[in-house]
Order: sequence, then structure tokens, then C-alpha cells
Amino acid sequence: MADKATLAQIDAYIEAHVDSFVERLRTLVNQPSVAAQNLGIENCAALVAGMLREQGHRVEVMPTGGSPVVYAESKGQADKTLLFYQHYDVQPAEPFDLWESPPFELTRRGDALYGRGTSDNKGNIVARIAAIEAIQHVMGTLPCAIKFLVEGEEEIGSVNLVPFVKQHRKKLAADACIWEFGGVNFQDRPELVLGLRGICYVELSARTASTDAHSGKGGSIFHNAAWRLVWALGTLKGRDERILIPGFYDDVKPPTARDLEILAALPDDIEDMKTRYGLKGYLNDMTDPAEIHRAEVFQPTCTICGLTSGYQGPGSKTVLPAEASAKIDFRLVPDQMPEAIIAKLRAHLDAHGFDDIGITDLGGGPAAKADPDDPFIRLVHATGEEVYGVAPVIHPLIGGSGPNYVFVHELNVPIATVGVGHAGSGAHAPNENIRLKDFILGIKHTAHVIARMGDLEPRGVK
Amino acid sequence: MADKATLAQIDAYIEAHVDSFVERLRTLVNQPSVAAQNLGIENCAALVAGMLREQGHRVEVMPTGGSPVVYAESKGQADKTLLFYQHYDVQPAEPFDLWESPPFELTRRGDALYGRGTSDNKGNIVARIAAIEAIQHVMGTLPCAIKFLVEGEEEIGSVNLVPFVKQHRKKLAADACIWEFGGVNFQDRPELVLGLRGICYVELSARTASTDAHSGKGGSIFHNAAWRLVWALGTLKGRDERILIPGFYDDVKPPTARDLEILAALPDDIEDMKTRYGLKGYLNDMTDPAEIHRAEVFQPTCTICGLTSGYQGPGSKTVLPAEASAKIDFRLVPDQMPEAIIAKLRAHLDAHGFDDIGITDLGGGPAAKADPDDPFIRLVHATGEEVYGVAPVIHPLIGGSGPNYVFVHELNVPIATVGVGHAGSGAHAPNENIRLKDFILGIKHTAHVIARMGDLEPRGVK
Repeated sequence: MADKATLAQIDAYIEAHVDSFVERLRTLVNQPSVAAQNLGIENCAALVAGMLREQGHRVEVMPTGGSPVVYAESKGQADKTLLFYQHYDVQPAEPFDLWESPPFELTRRGDALYGRGTSDNKGNIVARIAAIEAIQHVMGTLPCAIKFLVEGEEEIGSVNLVPFVKQHRKKLAADACIWEFGGVNFQDRPELVLGLRGICYVELSARTASTDAHSGKGGSIFHNAAWRLVWALGTLKGRDERILIPGFYDDVKPPTARDLEILAALPDDIEDMKTRYGLKGYLNDMTDPAEIHRAEVFQPTCTICGLTSGYQGPGSKTVLPAEASAKIDFRLVPDQMPEAIIAKLRAHLDAHGFDDIGITDLGGGPAAKADPDDPFIRLVHATGEEVYGVAPVIHPLIGGSGPNYVFVHELNVPIATVGVGHAGSGAHAPNENIRLKDFILGIKHTAHVIARMGDLEPRGVK
Repeated sequence: MADKATLAQIDAYIEAHVDSFVERLRTLVNQPSVAAQNLGIENCAALVAGMLREQGHRVEVMPTGGSPVVYAESKGQADKTLLFYQHYDVQPAEPFDLWESPPFELTRRGDALYGRGTSDNKGNIVARIAAIEAIQHVMGTLPCAIKFLVEGEEEIGSVNLVPFVKQHRKKLAADACIWEFGGVNFQDRPELVLGLRGICYVELSARTASTDAHSGKGGSIFHNAAWRLVWALGTLKGRDERILIPGFYDDVKPPTARDLEILAALPDDIEDMKTRYGLKGYLNDMTDPAEIHRAEVFQPTCTICGLTSGYQGPGSKTVLPAEASAKIDFRLVPDQMPEAIIAKLRAHLDAHGFDDIGITDLGGGPAAKADPDDPFIRLVHATGEEVYGVAPVIHPLIGGSGPNYVFVHELNVPIATVGVGHAGSGAHAPNENIRLKDFILGIKHTAHVIARMGDLEPRGVK
């Protein structure tokens, strides 16, 4: 559908128009859009809608009950549809004082572009748009139909996305989907991510009295919320990392032989991670990279993300706390379901005499992954090697989570995750950035995928 | 030494000058003096020194390495010396939003005076000064020598007091001591406290990485500081409240027969405490008042006063914390020593594989109590009955702690604790307050003790 000469012209167009793409990224980054703070959401949705409309797509800004979804679609030559899932909201920029340039002001330093959302996810929004522009210019038409779903609540748990996708199942129907993040790894090799773990995020809370007491008064005779919480948490996971909630592992589907084969090909980042995070070692004294890579993604977790009780300032305060709470994040693997985990957690706490410990469901969803041998995944892999000059590292599953499951389960699409970030992009951190070279490569990769969509074999053919 | 008519004149003077005493309390309360936050300490010391100087005492503001001690002394007619131990520092006022009037602005509502330190301990400082003023005015002289030691670090564990008292043993020599707090109980009966438990306050801390990680990234493979802390805490105390540190109970001296006799006379406050603190019940399902009263003071504790780790705001944040810490307060009974408890805690953590958990010593001291049959204690009891019209309830030991042990052990003085608070004073809590009637009674009681000090029998005579 697109021969080598055409692809070369597309690449040349992209290289010649980088400045214009950077300006579009500046437009989006300079518009704050922090969902957690309800900051600039409507304005940013309008900017994204405008860019897509300008490119000739039919665009709708659709209400969701929260941040609106920007939806866009265009017909294409072949009877194939490629869906882009993106989000225009960003993480809060705090702490501001750690930024070397203002977070909401795109700033170029050396070969990198700094600003909140450059990597997660505005750089990718612009990369998809830039790729389509190059295709339109060189090929004069779109080889496949294109759809965009750009949501505005990804950073607050995509709270309205699941019902939205279910409601608009037909409108969103597609043959394949490109996900919102991705990029090159610590060795500058492109990565192709095929799946995400699920998540079940809860807050556990204890209340033992109507008011805090003096610890000298109540220490021997009053129930202590912090102790109740600590004892309850202690029943959830052993020091060997085994989660002790009965039935927790019931629905765990082990990785396939193909998953393990792919994992075995991952580069050894064990020492790099130790340095990056200042670790003394890994859990359970693991040292074998294959074991660590398998545990990292195919093992469900029970992580304490936060603990709060009583006095937390400097020095001492002799208080007996009436309240205590913990934020707990269970990362789920196929085929664990968050609703079932919460039910099992409740039953477990009750069985241990902790019916006083409250559970607040703070959201979640199951894991989902694409078949590494799906024709679309193979197309993305092949075009990646073409553009980057090196075969993308495949991750059958990564440790993080997102709403990919609703697309996989409701729309039945294979999802490939590739993008413009790099290992030092600092998504969610101060000084978030992308490098120009990754931006250009990411645009080219997306363009090559679109250019070749007409060649896509039917699913099931290997 | 002071006949009934003189005592009546003293009482009348006190009643006639309440407004002036309240104004002096306003001066002290309106000057914040939070030792934990190093807020207003020097200014408050200067205000207290000024009030004592104005009353004719020889005053010194003495350095300690931390907050200064305000020391004052005056000679008296009889060869007896009464020492007042007080403190001008207060607890932090946080959380501010729970105060109905500003914490550092003395506010009268109904018959009560609200503000941080009204009860603990500025109301008592003013009560001692007011009592002396009444004595001076009516008797024209002081019946006994008076000494004041007003420190500024009581709320942060009196960290510099022990060496100070040891260094100034001769200067501080006295025949008897009145302690800093006290008041009437939930039935408005005056209380006479004879002893305090000891305390050993530590912070336990875990650090597992140089930086927090994304919980999706590290959940299965990185050590989690919050989990390390929770597991370590879980080894310290069983759900039956038994403290599991080997040797923790070795030095515990059980209450004497006389202690138990006095405890048996305590009023039944079991339902009152339940209502006051909003409790569903007591630890280990205790219901017998004698059992609860004995546990309340003669049982050592291990209280979690605070827990801190990771994300503690609203909603969810998927973070894997690199740091976690807990504030732990061990209340000690005779003859447990804090240094020994810390050594045993360290050995216990190490033995359980928690040598990564740091222990920061935030101060402490052993328990100490007076003989209920000491002549000074009997004088304070008798004058209490005289002023309040009802015999004070005696507590051989209470659950709280303070540096009384250094006075008992170094100065060999009997210590009586009586003051101006009431059961709802809320020391350490928002809306701390005293009632005017208790303020007046407390001033009278102190005055009667001073007036009768010349009659004090030698110790050992019963």
C-alpha cells in the first residue's frame, strides 16, 4: 500500500516540519489541564478539538459527566480502522520549585522539550496528528479510517471512560488501537507494550473513638486506631510477599510460554533500576533478571501507598489516635477482577476480627493484554524496526495499569503501545520532557503504521 | 500559722481579684509558646519572669541548651521551702480548624476560659502566682520560702531538665513540691495525684530506596518502606495487648497493698470515659472498674502515636513509598528504665530481621510516686477538703508522664499534683479550657497549702 519511496517521502516531510509540530505541542503544553485540580480542562479539550478539526476530521466534544471526550473520525481507503486512545489531561505540576523552567511553558533546552505533558500525553497527541498530516500530504488520502478518543480524566483514574466506551461501542469500533504512552528504553531501544496489569485501589480505615486521647490516659485501656490498622494490614501479606487473603490467587492465569519467551529477551536493566531508585536489592533477594522481570509484571501485588494516623510532625506528641488509614494498591494480573478482590478482602478482614476496618473503593479495573502474534502487533513491531533501525523490545505486560481493558473487552481490539517518551522523561515528576529525536522517530513510527494499515492481515492468520 | 479568719481573708482577696488573675492568664495564653515548633519560647519565658519579678521574687532566666528555665525564689518565715514545678511551653494548637475561637487568644464563653495552655499549664502558673499575691496581701509576709522552676520544654519531653536539676540540686533544694497540672474530676471532685508513669518515646523509621517509585513499577520487586514498618510494628505487641519485646516486663514492680486500697476508693468513671471519648468498650473487653483502674496506671504500654508514609491526601496516588515512620510511646511503671527499654527494643528488632528499622530516641524518664502517708501529702489532702468541701480523690499513680522522677530521685521531695483543670479541659486537644470556678478553687487551695506550710510535720512522723 505504501512502497519504500512513499515511506521515505513521509519521513522527509516529517523532518522538514518538526518546528511546526513543536509549535503545536507548545500550544497544548502551555494550556494547563490538570484534571485533579479541574484546571483548564475545557480549554484544552477545545484546543485538541481545533487541531483535529483543522486536519479534516469530523470532531465532537462529547460530555461524560466529568471532563469531555474529544472524539474524531475520518474515512480511509481500505476497510480498516485505526483507533488512537489519548488523553489531554496531565498530572499536577507540584512541587513547582523543583522545575527548572515553568511547567506550563514549553521550554527547549539542548535537544529536549520540557513541560508538563510533553511525554504524558500531549507529545503523543501531537505525534499522532503530525503522522496523519505527513500521510495526507504525501499520499493525498488516508490509507485506513482513523478514530481518536482523547479523554480528559486519565490522570484521575479515567473515572467516566468505561461507561462512555460501553455506550459508544459502535462509534468506537476499530480493527486496532494505538495506546497513549510509550517510547524508548534506558538503552534507547524502542519499546512495544502489549498489556497492562489491572488495579484495585482501596483505602482501609479504622476509627476507635470519637476523639483522640492523651496516650498516657488511654494507652492501657482504650482501643488504638493505629494499632487496629497495623494489625489488620499485617494479616494481608507475609514477609515473604505472599498475599494472605484467601482466594486472592484463584483467578491468576500464569504467563504463557510465549510470554516467558518474550520476557527472556528483555534487556538486563537490573543494575540500572538499582541505581535509578537507590535500591539495596530486590524483594526476596531475587537476583536473576528473568525471575525479576517475571515477578515485576506477572505477579499481583498488595502495595501500601500511604499510611496516616495521629501525630506526624517533628518531635513527639503523646496522642492516642482515634483514626488511622492506609492507601492500598493491588495490581492485578489476568484474570483477576477488582470486584472479587474487594469481596475477598472484606471476608478476610471479617474472618480475622477486623469488621471494624472500613474499605473505601477508590477505583480499578482488570488487566488486559494483546496477543504478541496478532497481525497488528506484528505490523507495529515491523514498522518499529524499520523506523528505529532496531527491533522494538516487546513487553507482554507491564506493571502499571490503565483503562485498556475496556477497549480489549468491549471493542475486541488489539492494542499496541508506542510513543515519544524516553527512560528519563519523568512522567508524573518535575522537569517532564521528551527528546526531539524521539519525537521525530515516534511520529515516523505512527505514520508507517498508518501507511501500512491496508496491508493488515486478518486476525488469526499467522 | 494561719487561723481560720486569715484563711477566710485570703479566700476573699482571691475572689475580689479574679479579673486581674484572668488578665494575667490572657497575657500568657496570647503569647504562643510551642516548644515543638520553637514558637514564641523566649518571649513567653520573659513574660513569666516579669510576672514573678513583679511579685518580689529574685528571678533568673537560666539557659539550658534548649528553652530557658525561669527560676524564682523568695525567703519565708518558717524554715520550710515549697517548690513549684511549672512549664510555660504548650502543645501545638493544630488542627486549627477544630478550634471555636483562636487558640492563642484567651476567650471567655459562659463560665469557661478557652485557649491553648489555659489548663496545661499557664492557668496553673497564674494560679500559683495569684495564691502568693493573696498570701502576701493578707499575711504581709510569706509563711515559707518559695521556689519556682518554670521550664519551657515539658511538651517535648523536658529534654534538658534532668541535667539542669542535677546541676542545680542545691539551688532547688526544698521540703515539698507542687506539680504542674491537676484539677477536678468528672464529678467535680478535686484530685490529688501522687505519681506519674515513666515514658520512653521513640520514632521508628524505614527507608528502602532513595526515591519513591511508581507502585505499578516497583510493587512486585522493590522493598516498600511502609510494609517494612508495618511488619516491624506487628512484632511489638500482640492483639491481646501483651508487649512482645523480650524482657520488657522484667523490672515491673507490682502496686503495693496501699496502692490497691487507694485505687479501690476511686469513683467509677467507666461509663463517663466511654461517653467522653466515644468508646465502644475497653481493651480486652474489660468491664470491672477495679481491673480497668489498675490496668490504666500500673500496666506499661506500647502506643502508636502516629504513622506516616507515602500519599495521604484525598483519593488515590499510585506511589510506592521509600520512607515510613511511626511515633511510639512506651509508658513505664516502677521500676522500668527507658534506656533499658530502648536497648531491648533494638535487640528485638534485630532478632526479627529488622535491623533496617531505625530508632530515634525522642526522650523519656522513669516512673516516680510519692508516699500517700507523707506529711506534706496529708497537708495537701486536708487543705483540699477545706477548700473544696469534699476530700480529694487520691491517685497513687496516673497514666501520664513527666519529669517528676528527677525531683523525687535527685531532690528527695514529696510531690503533690493539684491544679485548676477539669475533666473536660482538653489539654493537648482543640478548645482547651478551664472553668472560672476551678480557677478560683485552685488558687485558694494553693494559698491554703502555703499558709499552712509552717505547720508541716517532719517526714516519717505519722
